[in-house]
Amino acid sequence: MTIHTARRMQGMPASAVREILKVAERPDVLSFAGGLPAPELFPARELGQAFEAVLRKSPGAALQYGITEGFLPLRAWVADRLRARGIAATPESVVVVSGSQQGIDLTARVLLDPGATVLVENPSYLAALQAFTAYEVDVVALPGDSDGLRTDLLEDAIREHQPALIYVVPEFQNPRGATLASHRRHELAAVALRHGVPVLEDDPYGALRFRGTPSTPVAALAGDLTFHLGTFSKTLAPGLRLGWVHGPRPVMRTLTIAKQACDLHTATLTQHAVVELLRSFDYDAHLEVIRAEYRLRCEAMLRTLEHTMPPGTRWSTPDGGLFLWLELPPGLRDDEVFHAAIEHSVAVVPGNGFFVGPPQHGFLRLNFSNQSVENIELGMARLGRTLHELLARSSADAMGIQ
Amino acid sequence: MTIHTARRMQGMPASAVREILKVAERPDVLSFAGGLPAPELFPARELGQAFEAVLRKSPGAALQYGITEGFLPLRAWVADRLRARGIAATPESVVVVSGSQQGIDLTARVLLDPGATVLVENPSYLAALQAFTAYEVDVVALPGDSDGLRTDLLEDAIREHQPALIYVVPEFQNPRGATLASHRRHELAAVALRHGVPVLEDDPYGALRFRGTPSTPVAALAGDLTFHLGTFSKTLAPGLRLGWVHGPRPVMRTLTIAKQACDLHTATLTQHAVVELLRSFDYDAHLEVIRAEYRLRCEAMLRTLEHTMPPGTRWSTPDGGLFLWLELPPGLRDDEVFHAAIEHSVAVVPGNGFFVGPPQHGFLRLNFSNQSVENIELGMARLGRTLHELLARSSADAMGIQ
Repeated sequence: MTIHTARRMQGMPASAVREILKVAERPDVLSFAGGLPAPELFPARELGQAFEAVLRKSPGAALQYGITEGFLPLRAWVADRLRARGIAATPESVVVVSGSQQGIDLTARVLLDPGATVLVENPSYLAALQAFTAYEVDVVALPGDSDGLRTDLLEDAIREHQPALIYVVPEFQNPRGATLASHRRHELAAVALRHGVPVLEDDPYGALRFRGTPSTPVAALAGDLTFHLGTFSKTLAPGLRLGWVHGPRPVMRTLTIAKQACDLHTATLTQHAVVELLRSFDYDAHLEVIRAEYRLRCEAMLRTLEHTMPPGTRWSTPDGGLFLWLELPPGLRDDEVFHAAIEHSVAVVPGNGFFVGPPQHGFLRLNFSNQSVENIELGMARLGRTLHELLARSSADAMGIQ
Repeated sequence: MTIHTARRMQGMPASAVREILKVAERPDVLSFAGGLPAPELFPARELGQAFEAVLRKSPGAALQYGITEGFLPLRAWVADRLRARGIAATPESVVVVSGSQQGIDLTARVLLDPGATVLVENPSYLAALQAFTAYEVDVVALPGDSDGLRTDLLEDAIREHQPALIYVVPEFQNPRGATLASHRRHELAAVALRHGVPVLEDDPYGALRFRGTPSTPVAALAGDLTFHLGTFSKTLAPGLRLGWVHGPRPVMRTLTIAKQACDLHTATLTQHAVVELLRSFDYDAHLEVIRAEYRLRCEAMLRTLEHTMPPGTRWSTPDGGLFLWLELPPGLRDDEVFHAAIEHSVAVVPGNGFFVGPPQHGFLRLNFSNQSVENIELGMARLGRTLHELLARSSADAMGIQ
């Protein structure tokens, strides 16, 4: 018996990355494919103590239904952190969500009618594109470069497409690892305010800066129009599914109603446990540990790429986050590299999946947070061999040699 | 600066019950308004041990990203329980969700185009109506009685409205507490299969039967078309936000993609901890304890209502679940009773909010799971006095006495 599925689901493929991750699970494969934080840095013992403490001290409250907005002490903590970054947050402007992916979905649900346009950077975070697609909108992508979204193209794009939302990941963007330059943030904010276009500022990686100085968040520059997303996924652990949305108050009320219909509220127990953790745990010292380790891993990757990649290969130099973006030498395609790399027991993500519009097969996304320095050196050496072999084969082909 | 919100949000008020719950929070008020399980029955100590154990034994896996479908051992456990009830479930037919409310939302997202029709029972679960409304569908309500949805009206309604989904809560329905009679389940399944209309069987309370014998779930009678929702919210604790959807395999694949866009996956840690709990914990013995206690509370409520309610008041006799449905004596309105009851320090939910279509002000929903027998006796006595006073006042008004 055939069941008709809704039109919104028909344009929505499974995330290509998640499909690739299945291949990358082979035990001999060193994977640089996932966007996974380093599990050895999860504060597991402290989380265990926090769960134990709230279940001992206030089991009734920690296990009962809670309000949709989220546990007030957690919202107050988030608001404090956001205010320290210049964002005019209050506990009432913050809603706790089940990971910042849910923040993307809820913002889209609240703002986007079918047929509306969302402006994004090209390439962009896949699961955000997926979330937007579910609302039957048009996604229009503007190019980015090593300074992030090309904001000089924004005003013309707004005039042409009348977007209902601009989606940006200003810090260490997925997949390119690029940071939106300070002057571009100001330009983005000014243009958005001039045209009254809401901005969705997705900031999963902001706390992971290991180089350079932080820039002002867009939410501090265009507060009346900006929805700002954060998460504990990269700083405590993704398996908690705990994030937040801060945004303009009247719309946050609507977003709360939207969340109520989606899942009533985010897990009370997790919220209580994380609040308990944050009372005793030195969160900032913990962030320093993560940053120092990710810096080492990123540098190991950059260093090894220097030694192992064939001429013509280029890559980004991220200031933080989880990813590095590699441009293949002319003549190589991301998909052939992916398959050949798996044969060499190393997994990467073909860049094409992150692009909106015409295929672009010249890029790979490399994750440096989820492998040790040793494995990074080993894995990049394998990737280098893969590229050299493919180039040798293709030049042999070009010369007609079998 | 005004932000335009999507059309889907404009017909969607906050849940009336959740607004009422805020009033009911006054410390002197005995509340029978929420749909809250008894917190003293939450297995807090055992959950604490389970969280501690997984964070000690497998912190990396328990805190990392997980697959969207959910943790396989949990899906296997769910499938086993469903098979014991005659449902052809396998781990692959089950997706773990963040509470069964998310199951409603995801099923709606996958099946309902804007303008589609959903058939529901009248009155019905509010937050389901809220979830459907977000997809801009028409909700058509068929009457129910003490045997649940009037399935004899179903075939005509299907012919007239061509629904894309039939939503039912066959066990101890919220708000009426009624159970869908066995012959009606067969009729529902036969009619749904004849017309190829999917059924969403929401079963949050099925494990809470304290009287009578269980009937076959609709998912066991119309498996090719039925999405079956379950949850740990009423058996372990709602603050975990852990539920499941079982349904026809091809659509479960689509539902998984929909969930990926919504929140990537349900909390890995919670799934691992509950699997750990279920390995050592006697879940069925725990259900027996809950059922026995809820039976006592329900009986205390029924007994006290007999003694305290004015003539002309009627109420349902539930076989399980959390709720009892009270029909006010002629001349009394649910909203005036609600306000007068708050003055007597007792909170109930006016029934009107659960109805689709014309207002119906003759009913109250009473929750019996969240108060002790003693408080139930006290609270129902207060409610009885409230009704007696209102009736005396209205008959005095009728006689022109001030």
